[in-house]
Amino acid sequence: MALTIEYDGTHYYGFQLQACLPTIQDEMEKALHKLTGEHSRVMAASRTDTGVHAKGQVISFRTESSLPPQTFINGLNFYLPRDIAVKDAYSIDDTFNVRREAVSREYHYHILNSLTRSPIRDGFSHLVARPLNIEAMNQACQALIGEHDFASFVTCEGARTRSTTRTVHRAEMEKDGDSATFKIVANSFLTHQVRNTIGALIRVGLGKMSIDEFYSVKEAKTPGLAGPTAPPCGLCLMRINYPEHFEGSMQ
Amino acid sequence: MALTIEYDGTHYYGFQLQACLPTIQDEMEKALHKLTGEHSRVMAASRTDTGVHAKGQVISFRTESSLPPQTFINGLNFYLPRDIAVKDAYSIDDTFNVRREAVSREYHYHILNSLTRSPIRDGFSHLVARPLNIEAMNQACQALIGEHDFASFVTCEGARTRSTTRTVHRAEMEKDGDSATFKIVANSFLTHQVRNTIGALIRVGLGKMSIDEFYSVKEAKTPGLAGPTAPPCGLCLMRINYPEHFEGSMQ
Repeated sequence: MALTIEYDGTHYYGFQLQACLPTIQDEMEKALHKLTGEHSRVMAASRTDTGVHAKGQVISFRTESSLPPQTFINGLNFYLPRDIAVKDAYSIDDTFNVRREAVSREYHYHILNSLTRSPIRDGFSHLVARPLNIEAMNQACQALIGEHDFASFVTCEGARTRSTTRTVHRAEMEKDGDSATFKIVANSFLTHQVRNTIGALIRVGLGKMSIDEFYSVKEAKTPGLAGPTAPPCGLCLMRINYPEHFEGSMQ
Repeated sequence: MALTIEYDGTHYYGFQLQACLPTIQDEMEKALHKLTGEHSRVMAASRTDTGVHAKGQVISFRTESSLPPQTFINGLNFYLPRDIAVKDAYSIDDTFNVRREAVSREYHYHILNSLTRSPIRDGFSHLVARPLNIEAMNQACQALIGEHDFASFVTCEGARTRSTTRTVHRAEMEKDGDSATFKIVANSFLTHQVRNTIGALIRVGLGKMSIDEFYSVKEAKTPGLAGPTAPPCGLCLMRINYPEHFEGSMQ
């Protein structure tokens, strides 16, 4: 069974299980146990960090249960805490791996570009109180598109990853009033890659880093060089994309 | 001094002071006391109920302080809790009454029209899990526009108000994906008027009340007839409008 889930990650230590700390995976597995009586292990298509939100996370688990997908939706939403919800459910083949089969992941990073904080939006956006040059940020975004070694965009601890090459399909800034959103789609992401990227892009937007310097940072392929790591509250996993023939099997 | 303030009303018992209960007015007066040392009484242009939010509430108070408006913004935002923020400040004449001089108030009521709840939007919208006929709701909205006796839209306790005649300048539904927003602008509103109006409009949208019946409810001028009162989480005070010559003096 696969599920699309949405969560407000504010009060969780990320997706993945951690001893004695609340995580999304833990809440999902507890709710599944209540619904089916089984101890299912849950896998996520894209593991989110502490405090990061998701609108379209995809997870999967094995089950012997014959409950129909709609009952999984309603039943899990009954047992889950208010800040996690199942939006959709699909019967899938046991061989289907939601992480491996995913073609790309889309993340949005929400910035509130305003002189003052906003109680209505603070939980889901990062306040930048000085004006951002969105055009310069969009020019820097061009450096990201395509297949590149993104080593500069991982923090030092993340540098153990075998390969730091990823393919970015889309990277752009959009502005609407005092909201600025960074939208990025890639085959997959390195640890903290999106938050280090937007951290560096904000420096470009504030005039603290030139577009050329942004390109140089990328070319240096040196862990820890890009940043600072922007706070998690602004980040949201929007969507996981699968090949078309799987999209069909996931209905 | 006048301020534009924004708040997440979830944890407050409305705007107005209540003994031993947290209210927006109480938090504003406490923060003002910390900043200026004065015990100022705060007045709101539109009093919001328990759990109702505001993006553009306007308040005023008398002060002997000579602090400039920008210092009021920064200082109050330092002392206020995270769910209340000052967005703007204006030096005004002591004779200026933010409630009496207001020409109109704009409220939005946010509906999440989806089969499942949304952790990211739940705090600021009301979930309606069956499809809404937005066109029918918009036709019913026509009944509201203009000067009418809105007695049917007050709850019984609200019926003590001297006159129940109000002028609605704009009333319409807008839909964007699974979001449906009711936007209403009027010279002023009766107690629970917006929430009783959208409660009745939702019945129209679900096919439980015809457009003709909606018109009849309005014509009956009987307190308690329209409803049910929709929950406060979906309601947000968006803006207070002043005559143009005052708008200038409020810069």
